[in-house]
Amino acid sequence: MIKKTKVNSAILIIGNEILSGRTQDTNTSTIATWLNSIGVKVEEVRVIPDIEKTIINSLNFLKTTYDYVFTSGGIGPTHDDITAESVSKAFGLKYEIHKEAYKILEAYYKPGEFNEGRQKMVWMPENANLILNPTSGAPGFSVENVFCLPGVPSILKSMLGGLTNSIVGGDPILSLTISLRTVESEIASSITKIQDNNKDVEIGSYPFFQAGKLGVSIVIRSEDQLKIDDCNSQILEFVNEKKIEVVDR
Amino acid sequence: MIKKTKVNSAILIIGNEILSGRTQDTNTSTIATWLNSIGVKVEEVRVIPDIEKTIINSLNFLKTTYDYVFTSGGIGPTHDDITAESVSKAFGLKYEIHKEAYKILEAYYKPGEFNEGRQKMVWMPENANLILNPTSGAPGFSVENVFCLPGVPSILKSMLGGLTNSIVGGDPILSLTISLRTVESEIASSITKIQDNNKDVEIGSYPFFQAGKLGVSIVIRSEDQLKIDDCNSQILEFVNEKKIEVVDR
Repeated sequence: MIKKTKVNSAILIIGNEILSGRTQDTNTSTIATWLNSIGVKVEEVRVIPDIEKTIINSLNFLKTTYDYVFTSGGIGPTHDDITAESVSKAFGLKYEIHKEAYKILEAYYKPGEFNEGRQKMVWMPENANLILNPTSGAPGFSVENVFCLPGVPSILKSMLGGLTNSIVGGDPILSLTISLRTVESEIASSITKIQDNNKDVEIGSYPFFQAGKLGVSIVIRSEDQLKIDDCNSQILEFVNEKKIEVVDR
Repeated sequence: MIKKTKVNSAILIIGNEILSGRTQDTNTSTIATWLNSIGVKVEEVRVIPDIEKTIINSLNFLKTTYDYVFTSGGIGPTHDDITAESVSKAFGLKYEIHKEAYKILEAYYKPGEFNEGRQKMVWMPENANLILNPTSGAPGFSVENVFCLPGVPSILKSMLGGLTNSIVGGDPILSLTISLRTVESEIASSITKIQDNNKDVEIGSYPFFQAGKLGVSIVIRSEDQLKIDDCNSQILEFVNEKKIEVVDR
């Protein structure tokens, strides 16, 4: 495979519990942070309900638009876990027992405990590649550029390390944060000028409120450390001129 | 306006900082919880970068697919705040100074402090309706069924209350949670049967790990309390049969 400089991805969170507000999603941040570290930029996140047609339509769009797609949720043993079957349909593949996954779970559970519910977790798209699960046995899987992970945050987290070899990232996306004791409107025009003069870095401005004080974090992102450093100098120039305090955060 | 029984919505989170994993989104959960309480179901969430074309395309799809769309982020004073201009383009409206917003911010700031950066925050789609901001002055706005809120969680939260009169919800979506000391695979087939016999309630199954112990929360959701109660009885029946402990959570 030829290594691309820029590699992008989308995250598809599948689950009614996130849409109802009952559960706070943390998997997006976990997956995105990990992807950034291996040079894959997340360009879109979608959260959708456990509805087969919606899962299939979303997958069909995302898998043809981005280099990689990571799904989270819907691969457990209950009736609302329909990700594996939906992925099979999206790719036009049979939905069947995965022999290797069956062996893994048969060995994982005590004799007699590999019951009907648990056996549902070995049904996957035919010839899926397994994503090993060091926490709770049941593997995730991938088909082409779509990687299906569980919804439980601690289990998902434990599975990412084993995936690193399956993903071919681009140049790592580097970032530098400068936190200032100011408000956005005081620095808006200076930052705009710097962004205009440095089109190939991405400058974000994020207000924060910490220990009773307002501040703004400026985040510079690029694959090129020299460009980040250059942009940083330009920012520190107006920061010094305006006598704005730089703070630790 | 005729009150519909079922009213749906989408949330559009605009901001590179969520996609990079740097910032954990909490606005989805805040908006969704509030919407549920006024009878509006969230059927989709998208997180997208600060790119005009992406914002416009997403808005054009979401605003014609759902009854309401709520955006968060990109309405501040800096160069990366492009939501208001993008909404204008999505609706084919002029992007101009909103006189009422101008008056609000002129009065909000001390003389001389209503600078260029802050004045950017009064540029909106023509004839936008303002969403008042009791926390930090700068209003959000709505155009037709699209409501634009800020990204800072505490400010966003403070603005929702004032919006309630602008949203016509359907029947409130009620829910009941039963937490059990069990694992999903032990109850999967029983829950599947109950879901099959109660197609018009939504039953979700969510494993949890608390104080060193595993459990599963079963969430029943419907607009009809009687249906929830009925479904609850059916669940408690097999819970008693299987001698599963019900736990507080």
